[in-house]
Amino acid sequence: MIVRPPQHWFLRLFDWYGSVLSKILFRLSLNLLMSVFAVIGYQWYETLGIRLTTAPFSLLGVAIAIFLGFRNSASYARFIEARQLWGGLLITQRSLLRQIKSVLLHKPQEAETFAALLTAFSWSLNHQLRHTDDRADLTRLVPARFADEVLRSPFPANRLLLCMGIWLGEQRQQGNISDMLYTGIDHNLNALSKVLGGCERISNTPIPFAYSLILHRTVYLFCTLLPFALVEDLHYMTPLVSVFISYTFLSLEALAEELEDPFGTAPNDLPLNAICNTIERNMKEMNDDFPLPEKLVHDKRYNLI
Amino acid sequence: MIVRPPQHWFLRLFDWYGSVLSKILFRLSLNLLMSVFAVIGYQWYETLGIRLTTAPFSLLGVAIAIFLGFRNSASYARFIEARQLWGGLLITQRSLLRQIKSVLLHKPQEAETFAALLTAFSWSLNHQLRHTDDRADLTRLVPARFADEVLRSPFPANRLLLCMGIWLGEQRQQGNISDMLYTGIDHNLNALSKVLGGCERISNTPIPFAYSLILHRTVYLFCTLLPFALVEDLHYMTPLVSVFISYTFLSLEALAEELEDPFGTAPNDLPLNAICNTIERNMKEMNDDFPLPEKLVHDKRYNLI
Amino acid sequence: MIVRPPQHWFLRLFDWYGSVLSKILFRLSLNLLMSVFAVIGYQWYETLGIRLTTAPFSLLGVAIAIFLGFRNSASYARFIEARQLWGGLLITQRSLLRQIKSVLLHKPQEAETFAALLTAFSWSLNHQLRHTDDRADLTRLVPARFADEVLRSPFPANRLLLCMGIWLGEQRQQGNISDMLYTGIDHNLNALSKVLGGCERISNTPIPFAYSLILHRTVYLFCTLLPFALVEDLHYMTPLVSVFISYTFLSLEALAEELEDPFGTAPNDLPLNAICNTIERNMKEMNDDFPLPEKLVHDKRYNLI
Amino acid sequence: MIVRPPQHWFLRLFDWYGSVLSKILFRLSLNLLMSVFAVIGYQWYETLGIRLTTAPFSLLGVAIAIFLGFRNSASYARFIEARQLWGGLLITQRSLLRQIKSVLLHKPQEAETFAALLTAFSWSLNHQLRHTDDRADLTRLVPARFADEVLRSPFPANRLLLCMGIWLGEQRQQGNISDMLYTGIDHNLNALSKVLGGCERISNTPIPFAYSLILHRTVYLFCTLLPFALVEDLHYMTPLVSVFISYTFLSLEALAEELEDPFGTAPNDLPLNAICNTIERNMKEMNDDFPLPEKLVHDKRYNLI
Amino acid sequence: MIVRPPQHWFLRLFDWYGSVLSKILFRLSLNLLMSVFAVIGYQWYETLGIRLTTAPFSLLGVAIAIFLGFRNSASYARFIEARQLWGGLLITQRSLLRQIKSVLLHKPQEAETFAALLTAFSWSLNHQLRHTDDRADLTRLVPARFADEVLRSPFPANRLLLCMGIWLGEQRQQGNISDMLYTGIDHNLNALSKVLGGCERISNTPIPFAYSLILHRTVYLFCTLLPFALVEDLHYMTPLVSVFISYTFLSLEALAEELEDPFGTAPNDLPLNAICNTIERNMKEMNDDFPLPEKLVHDKRYNLI
Repeated sequence: MIVRPPQHWFLRLFDWYGSVLSKILFRLSLNLLMSVFAVIGYQWYETLGIRLTTAPFSLLGVAIAIFLGFRNSASYARFIEARQLWGGLLITQRSLLRQIKSVLLHKPQEAETFAALLTAFSWSLNHQLRHTDDRADLTRLVPARFADEVLRSPFPANRLLLCMGIWLGEQRQQGNISDMLYTGIDHNLNALSKVLGGCERISNTPIPFAYSLILHRTVYLFCTLLPFALVEDLHYMTPLVSVFISYTFLSLEALAEELEDPFGTAPNDLPLNAICNTIERNMKEMNDDFPLPEKLVHDKRYNLI
Repeated sequence: MIVRPPQHWFLRLFDWYGSVLSKILFRLSLNLLMSVFAVIGYQWYETLGIRLTTAPFSLLGVAIAIFLGFRNSASYARFIEARQLWGGLLITQRSLLRQIKSVLLHKPQEAETFAALLTAFSWSLNHQLRHTDDRADLTRLVPARFADEVLRSPFPANRLLLCMGIWLGEQRQQGNISDMLYTGIDHNLNALSKVLGGCERISNTPIPFAYSLILHRTVYLFCTLLPFALVEDLHYMTPLVSVFISYTFLSLEALAEELEDPFGTAPNDLPLNAICNTIERNMKEMNDDFPLPEKLVHDKRYNLI
Repeated sequence: MIVRPPQHWFLRLFDWYGSVLSKILFRLSLNLLMSVFAVIGYQWYETLGIRLTTAPFSLLGVAIAIFLGFRNSASYARFIEARQLWGGLLITQRSLLRQIKSVLLHKPQEAETFAALLTAFSWSLNHQLRHTDDRADLTRLVPARFADEVLRSPFPANRLLLCMGIWLGEQRQQGNISDMLYTGIDHNLNALSKVLGGCERISNTPIPFAYSLILHRTVYLFCTLLPFALVEDLHYMTPLVSVFISYTFLSLEALAEELEDPFGTAPNDLPLNAICNTIERNMKEMNDDFPLPEKLVHDKRYNLI
Repeated sequence: MIVRPPQHWFLRLFDWYGSVLSKILFRLSLNLLMSVFAVIGYQWYETLGIRLTTAPFSLLGVAIAIFLGFRNSASYARFIEARQLWGGLLITQRSLLRQIKSVLLHKPQEAETFAALLTAFSWSLNHQLRHTDDRADLTRLVPARFADEVLRSPFPANRLLLCMGIWLGEQRQQGNISDMLYTGIDHNLNALSKVLGGCERISNTPIPFAYSLILHRTVYLFCTLLPFALVEDLHYMTPLVSVFISYTFLSLEALAEELEDPFGTAPNDLPLNAICNTIERNMKEMNDDFPLPEKLVHDKRYNLI
Repeated sequence: MIVRPPQHWFLRLFDWYGSVLSKILFRLSLNLLMSVFAVIGYQWYETLGIRLTTAPFSLLGVAIAIFLGFRNSASYARFIEARQLWGGLLITQRSLLRQIKSVLLHKPQEAETFAALLTAFSWSLNHQLRHTDDRADLTRLVPARFADEVLRSPFPANRLLLCMGIWLGEQRQQGNISDMLYTGIDHNLNALSKVLGGCERISNTPIPFAYSLILHRTVYLFCTLLPFALVEDLHYMTPLVSVFISYTFLSLEALAEELEDPFGTAPNDLPLNAICNTIERNMKEMNDDFPLPEKLVHDKRYNLI
């Protein structure tokens, strides 16, 4: 995710990274080509009785803008929900560790075991969503006792939740935690379960495929035909205006597609690694387990992954 | 549900499956026919004093786009809510089994009985929503003791919830679970009840019928009259532009209708079978009950049901 | 509420019942008359210097469509919330009965008393919202002990909730239910209280009156003036196009008004009777109290009340 | 708040009270004046090379309609949230009294003290939001023991909540209520705290001032310039169309401003007095404390305050 | 945040402070310059075959208005959520102190310690979000016992939550609070954790950068080209209309940018200091710890920070 510091409005006009321009450059070039062809060929093909006017394109353009606005909202809602789930992850993990430390006063050992399970859970979810290898992080974090079952599980994040449940059940059985306190903590384990399931839902269920398809097609066809409709009025200005309008539509369509899966590593996706790093630093700080891991910062293009 | 891997933007323009094109092909053909008739008959019927212009159609087109956008949001909201309910089903069932295993440590038998009831609940809900026969799945999954009452009930999914409640009440009566723990688990049974009731609500209460009707009519009439309004300006280009505009409106209307009932088996509906399969695999994995059932994958058209 | 089975797209164009056409037929006829007058009188009144053009009507039409879209969303949100509250009613009542049966194992008598109170609550709420006479249903359902105070109360639904609370408090006092279990069940009584209060809120607080008024006026005035703006371009086609545009605006305005109060018995309102019937059947089934009451089905126009 | 019974659609066109017409009458008159000036002065000022056309006003009008639609949604959302908070107040107070009566069976004295505190809380919140004098109502309602501290507090509503907490804590200390039951009731006190805080938030934090300002300005300037753009096409019809379009925009802007603060006593604001009256009647009825206070009804203009 | 008392509609047209006019004045001046250049150079550059017409700009303008409307909603949603979180902070802190005072009757010492931790938490969150120095406020407020660990923590707000947890755990260990009451209070600590995490989320995760960029660019380019499209129709009126349309688009874009980060101190940002002051006054009043700190009021431009 690009986290750019405030820029002067004029400089911002020429910002390159972070926009989706690179993705649509080829299509914009095609559009430019079409416009030039329209300007040159205009008088020839009009003699064939072929002409387009702006009126129907105006109607179509507004209709597409409305539907594209809807698609943008849908994609953005997924992005926001994903961010809220990961925000909820940090919140719940801090709450859980606070509960454990408050209930098991003066038992730092237990708090550290539990904090390790929590940190492992967040990294495991990260790897699951990004389809990356979780082996290194799990080996590094999961307490020895649970390492084996977590590492060989096909659903390691959910298994880690089960391990927390078992650990908690044992504390209860040993009398360290009353049934009442157990229930209060278990409530937050349910919250972690909701985060896990929510992320899986976003990751596994795209926006209905036909939406993307219909809009992708109509936006592209609209931009391709546009120069032929503009040329009669605008002559030499056709390429400028046509590319400008196409940029507006194509870039928003491309961005909607990028935001639809917010768990990738593109410039507009969520910085899962940075969030996991924040969680790890928080867990360690609450246990006074210094030094904390280095804080993850953005690269020189202000990109945080 | 179509879950297509990322495609090149150009190939996507020609993707056939997953779009709703097949549903509206006939209407588009009619529109093409109308356009051709408009082009041919234009000069004849104008002598009769009959003419249409683009201005009122532009106004009407934008108005219909706004209302269609509203209908799309309403349908999509149903789709999203249905997906969230089924996501909540997986979440709650994992939480419930985690609670049982954490509270009844070292009683694998009990956990298996409960997991079977949970799995049966999800399949039963699936069959209820799709109006398919649940006999085979219920016989396969429901523990013998409850099989009879569930199979002969007119509301098997709700009956399964009642069975879980009774099972839990007995565990409490036998002293395996304190009142406090009972309440914590019962809280999640309420959540299952909410999933069941929510799905029934979506399934039984369509979007008010008049919305579908009014939009269906106005979209169709609009597309039918459109070529006659365009022909004066566009001549030979009328069929191309008219079919293009009609495609935009008709396809979005058809998609809204498809999403309105997200529990079907159309390409844009929810993959209930795959979710049930995921739940079953999760339940078994948490009980270390290997081998897990095979994972359900999409067919060669990327369709998952 | 109309629950029509899937129709062929062509037949649907001519569906009469369920649309709001009957409500606006008179206004559409007036519009037709105006159009005819505009066509006939056009040349005469233009000599007086009176003319209208489409440009300002196009602007106005789009503005009204945007505001009408907003009003539709507001009305539809009320409809949806009302449906969710009644869905929540069914959910909570099933949960409550499940809890009672699970906690008071082998006390069918108590479960039946409680189920009767629940069923009475749903019918009472139904009658309160539709301003119909609840006497027959309350007499039929409320257990003798509570009948008197409920029947003479000015707020019978809320009184029934109080009775459930008292009944539960007595069970607690008699030691049948521990404080913990009491709290878990009481939590669901709060949920019933929320359903009651939510329905009352929707029923008592309409959308701010000025919204309805402003839109009602502008839509009507717009439709009345429209033919005079169209006639210059469209001549003989004015009546067709004018009535078509008016139908789009008037019907959506009429539908928004119908949905605003979702508790009526119009074709687009909620089928409260059918929901109460479902609740009653569910309560009886859970108590194995056969035969169940007959299932309420739609009449031959697919109308369910 | 105006609660008008259903009207015939034709009569409704001429309804005066309840619309915001009175607020914008002066601005509409100015607009009429401008229009007349435009019609008269048209030919003179055109010779100076000054002319306006509808095209840019059409673009601007649609843009303003979109932004105005957004502002309307924002204002309406505040109205709805305020209504939900007050609905939640009634719900929670009924639930609390039900809990108290169910837990403290046969202690009518205690239930009456608590009901008095609840009723006082709702009136106190009402007075706080409307900046009216709460002295009379607090003196009438607050039990003698708490009267002093509530009356001299700068935050009387919050103080009443504290009093309820203290009262409940004392019941717990005296052993009338177990810790478990205490927690269940305290949960609903938290809900009252949310209502209080929510209302304060709406009351203290307006929609960002710049929104109102920008829209107020652009709407007004748009309406002022409009006649000069219309006059070329419409001649003598300019005043009619210009005032009609201005009415649409100005009235919706004025309504948005009125709804922004829903706690006033304007015709589209919430009837806080009527809700407090309903609460008081409910509390008394639940305690069988007859006769109930008179029900507050609307005045002869259907206005309920 | 500007909290202006109601103004006469006419005066409001000329209100300067609180609008974002100062931010876009330079861009508006550029636009004015462009317009003048267009008027003067019009006939010269048209001989070169360069011309623009309003039709494509109308289409583009509506499309941009739709996308800008979406961006405004997204920014405003962040503002509203931030305000709700801070409202939730006040609510939860009042609830927590009420609980403590109700459970630990007649232990004013303990209530004061806890109130100090709560007040410190709100100021600490304020400083964290505004990147200001929290040293003075923490030293002033945090009880001596916890001062050290809070002051040297990299996450002081979260550390304060941990301190509250530890304090509560100790009360439980000393037998002042039963497990049940502990859980009820701990529930509200979780709510504080949610406020903290929610604010951090809004503060750390801007709206996807590409949205701002694309809209910033298209709005600016649109406004720059606009005069050249208007000049053919409007001649001398071009500067007026062009600046007016540009003002509408640029000011809403600028406001969206300002609302995106609601924790700043700009005129449309949230008054965090005033909320913290309210919290501090409430905490003290509940503990009868007079005199209360002075109430923070707006400066003479009605700005509250």
